[in-house]
Amino acid sequence: MSLPRLDTNYLVPDVTRDHVAALQPYVDLAHRMLVEKTGPGAEMLGWTDPAALMPPDLRTRIKNAASRLRGKADVMVVIGIGGSYLGARAVIDALPSADSSRVLYAGQTLGASYMADLKRQLKGKRWCINVVSKSGTTTEPAVAFRILKKQLEDEVGREAARELIVATTDPDPAKSALRRVADKEGYETFSVPPDVGGRFSVLSAVGVLPIAFAGADVDALVQGAADCCSACANPNVLKNPAYHYAAVRNLLYRQGKSIELTAVVEPQLYYLVEWWKQLFGESEGKDHSSLFPAGVQYTTDLHSMGQWVQEGRRNLFETFLCSYSLALKVEIPDDPENADGLNFLSHTGIAEVNKKAFEGTALAHCDGGVPNMTICIDDLTEHSLGALLYFYERACAVSGYMLGVNPFNQPGVEAYKKNMFALMNKPGFEAEHAEVAARVANARVDEDIAFG
Amino acid sequence: MSLPRLDTNYLVPDVTRDHVAALQPYVDLAHRMLVEKTGPGAEMLGWTDPAALMPPDLRTRIKNAASRLRGKADVMVVIGIGGSYLGARAVIDALPSADSSRVLYAGQTLGASYMADLKRQLKGKRWCINVVSKSGTTTEPAVAFRILKKQLEDEVGREAARELIVATTDPDPAKSALRRVADKEGYETFSVPPDVGGRFSVLSAVGVLPIAFAGADVDALVQGAADCCSACANPNVLKNPAYHYAAVRNLLYRQGKSIELTAVVEPQLYYLVEWWKQLFGESEGKDHSSLFPAGVQYTTDLHSMGQWVQEGRRNLFETFLCSYSLALKVEIPDDPENADGLNFLSHTGIAEVNKKAFEGTALAHCDGGVPNMTICIDDLTEHSLGALLYFYERACAVSGYMLGVNPFNQPGVEAYKKNMFALMNKPGFEAEHAEVAARVANARVDEDIAFG
Repeated sequence: MSLPRLDTNYLVPDVTRDHVAALQPYVDLAHRMLVEKTGPGAEMLGWTDPAALMPPDLRTRIKNAASRLRGKADVMVVIGIGGSYLGARAVIDALPSADSSRVLYAGQTLGASYMADLKRQLKGKRWCINVVSKSGTTTEPAVAFRILKKQLEDEVGREAARELIVATTDPDPAKSALRRVADKEGYETFSVPPDVGGRFSVLSAVGVLPIAFAGADVDALVQGAADCCSACANPNVLKNPAYHYAAVRNLLYRQGKSIELTAVVEPQLYYLVEWWKQLFGESEGKDHSSLFPAGVQYTTDLHSMGQWVQEGRRNLFETFLCSYSLALKVEIPDDPENADGLNFLSHTGIAEVNKKAFEGTALAHCDGGVPNMTICIDDLTEHSLGALLYFYERACAVSGYMLGVNPFNQPGVEAYKKNMFALMNKPGFEAEHAEVAARVANARVDEDIAFG
Repeated sequence: MSLPRLDTNYLVPDVTRDHVAALQPYVDLAHRMLVEKTGPGAEMLGWTDPAALMPPDLRTRIKNAASRLRGKADVMVVIGIGGSYLGARAVIDALPSADSSRVLYAGQTLGASYMADLKRQLKGKRWCINVVSKSGTTTEPAVAFRILKKQLEDEVGREAARELIVATTDPDPAKSALRRVADKEGYETFSVPPDVGGRFSVLSAVGVLPIAFAGADVDALVQGAADCCSACANPNVLKNPAYHYAAVRNLLYRQGKSIELTAVVEPQLYYLVEWWKQLFGESEGKDHSSLFPAGVQYTTDLHSMGQWVQEGRRNLFETFLCSYSLALKVEIPDDPENADGLNFLSHTGIAEVNKKAFEGTALAHCDGGVPNMTICIDDLTEHSLGALLYFYERACAVSGYMLGVNPFNQPGVEAYKKNMFALMNKPGFEAEHAEVAARVANARVDEDIAFG
């Protein structure tokens, strides 16, 4: 059993272990708010117990559904936005045991080119849909579901399509238009747990069904999260790397850092960063406070953002997320002429070079004034990733409570939707239409700045 | 002829046109440093005249090479990192007239999974290589070139492979190992202009050859840049949107903003943001100053970073990059039952909904305390994109000079490389090996923070 560890050695002198240990009372307070469910947002803590969130009978039902769909379809389109797809995508991309080419994504954009490409790509394929939406009325996934459901029905007929669509939504038909449609059409359904917010839902049916369809071992995934949960019972900040991470973030923010850069060193881990951005950004980005979560992928971005990180404004710190597995060996060939001078690397695997690059980077950034730490996982297995997801969720909850915000709401995400609905004259928004349309028109009172 | 425009209306009250006009003397100074080549980095201004950078005979040679390669190969692998691929990828992804499925990328990562996947993907395909490296010794592309050259030679034989490899590198064999190899092997070659830095090289052979291979009209691309260049002869900040953009960034930085968020509203434009991040981050991220460049893709990221942007710390501003084309219509079907309540959108194209979402978002973010502006292009054609690339390059140069830095060097990018070479015991780094290895070992003096 391996759980995430935290290498804090490049945080000194900004943050020492003594500094972190001094925060123990505040960590204890946050821990109690979480486990005793006495903090703000306590009604949204269904994610805290992964074993209860995903009991054996539900896991069996998910595995059966995935197996049934894999018999009928080569590709699954996951229709969802934000927490309804990011966690699944993060795990499917990262896991060598999952076949990421079997899962495509829709409803996460209103881009017309993207949708047109996807529709083309699906033609002639055997495909199915997992539509994930708590309410069933979120514009992006609802629009995508209309379009893709029609295509699927046109291709295989309405009867057969019913067997190829699975809906993951609120259990209460009064709260979910998608639940009502699914019940009427006879789609298989799974529940978005009412006490789990989207960004904490990857280890519910929301994430687990697509992950199972991709071929991963979901029992091991859940077990990893459950093992990390058990380990988190100990709130000692020097024995709990999730809490230690939360405390370090809190200290660095108070020291004046305004950006946390999470860096991965392999491209297939990048969606873990996107998932992390939502988790921390949406949980903490309120009350005009908190660290801005940004992501980079190395060594790729050392050749774009590297200069900034090395010598730009000293208002950031960096958290590496690394798996140390060197199992996959892609060997560098020998070149008798050695024109590029790289024969000292002949027959080395590129993963080994990548590891040296990471070590060199962490040291260089520390020397450049960027305190950094590393979240280490031993391998990219279901168990390790399940534990990692839980590590981040738990760290986020404690970090949010230490910051003094409710980590489980997201009051700001409605602002653009209200304007959009008003501009589109959506039924129910007639009153706002005139006002918002006038404001947009008035904002245009000045001509654009144009060449000439 | 259409050139980028700048909609500044959501900058008020933080930045008014009077505020910007008051910066005219500083803009004039930066303009003169640029056109009279009297500022720092003046030896790297080869990009400023796009017509001279890409004269007709060079364009013809590039088009002929692309045409020859398209006859022999269905897929081109562009091997390069940073400025050696980002510009090409940005244009190829964004342009509807380019076939992005024909161009793959390598040498931009040391990830073993990525390389193993790419090698598998190429098997059985007709493919060619454009290796882009000024020196030919940058680790990531050099390693990828060794691996892929061997695969290509194994697949088609060494003779045939020679016809399928094109090198873009420094013209001077003394400065480029790749030039020496190419001359010896008889590869077709193009030059990385010695007076153009990687991040300003998209409109040289570096970017134009892959873009031509993807099927785009490179004459129109260059013409767009040249037209934008002509228009930039006017330094009047109210008549030059590139300079206006630079001045606004400068004002907002001085007002205390520390992050610029560039937002696109279609996924295929995302690599323009990655290219922009390198352009501005590497040009300005020095002397411990400058705005941190971050990117988002809407509406996707409104469901992850949206909360933070709406209500997080008020230390950011936002620049939308929008094309207003609604040409591609992917229609929303009618649903007689209207369960999702979206029948008010029946038969609407999703691009129209996306446009309303953008308008609603810009207003909501302004209301939330995030000043924002929009760079507008009329369509996604070669001409418009060429003009846009030049717009950003010119704005970046002026912005950097206004900030007081040399926008054309990148002293910080060597730091991690030196450590990496030392750790790998690269010939020439023997002296540093012991020291750096000891520092990395010493940094490990504390155990990781682990559960238990």
